[in-house]
Amino acid sequence: MTLTDAERQFLSGQRLGRLATVAPGGFPQVKPVGLTYNGALGTIDIYGLDMAGSAKYRNVQQHPEVAVVVDVPGNGPGDVRFLEIRGRAETATAEAAPFPGAARDIIRIHPRRVLALNIDPGQAGLQARDVGAAI
Amino acid sequence: MTLTDAERQFLSGQRLGRLATVAPGGFPQVKPVGLTYNGALGTIDIYGLDMAGSAKYRNVQQHPEVAVVVDVPGNGPGDVRFLEIRGRAETATAEAAPFPGAARDIIRIHPRRVLALNIDPGQAGLQARDVGAAI
Repeated sequence: MTLTDAERQFLSGQRLGRLATVAPGGFPQVKPVGLTYNGALGTIDIYGLDMAGSAKYRNVQQHPEVAVVVDVPGNGPGDVRFLEIRGRAETATAEAAPFPGAARDIIRIHPRRVLALNIDPGQAGLQARDVGAAI
Repeated sequence: MTLTDAERQFLSGQRLGRLATVAPGGFPQVKPVGLTYNGALGTIDIYGLDMAGSAKYRNVQQHPEVAVVVDVPGNGPGDVRFLEIRGRAETATAEAAPFPGAARDIIRIHPRRVLALNIDPGQAGLQARDVGAAI
């Protein structure tokens, strides 16, 4: 498994992630996106309404390195939990759209590194690890 | 003004943004951050608990191009409002920490391009414009 049970449970309870891609020239961009964990492939699948027409979709085809973060604010400033997944992305076609109106065109992330802050109740603080998936 | 009244009002009501930076080798990273609009300078000031020790702080010193997004989910999938600000960042020292425990070390973004989706009630849809600030 690319993600732990706690990480998958955390992801499944969140609606939005924020995806960072890199445009030509080294200019980062960041957008709110929908995402699901694809257990069969061990990937993070990113979807949206007009995915194939988006800058992030084109960016990935030129510069496949991406990062996505899912987080929840806590009770005070600086009190936040997050799961960041970095890896190599490709454009792909999902078997089915995740919700009516969404495109089947997706960005599929093959995770390389996972950073989790206070996601697993048994592991406080920041946890970082490399994961093995590769295209 | 770098930001419109509607954009500033939107920012002031949000607790977290997500900052994309680029690590050596062209690898993007993305993290939840606190942020404020600095009206005197026309910049976006990014703060955190251990800012000077963070990877994003080091990233900015090597690769100043960044992007930050602030968003709010809507009532359904794909129904999201966001404000994305792209620009050139520098590390700086704020006159005062924005909250107890926060560092005075900040990342200061000089906006170059602003993208707003459904932020200004008078302008529906995606609005994108270049802004003039430069270091």
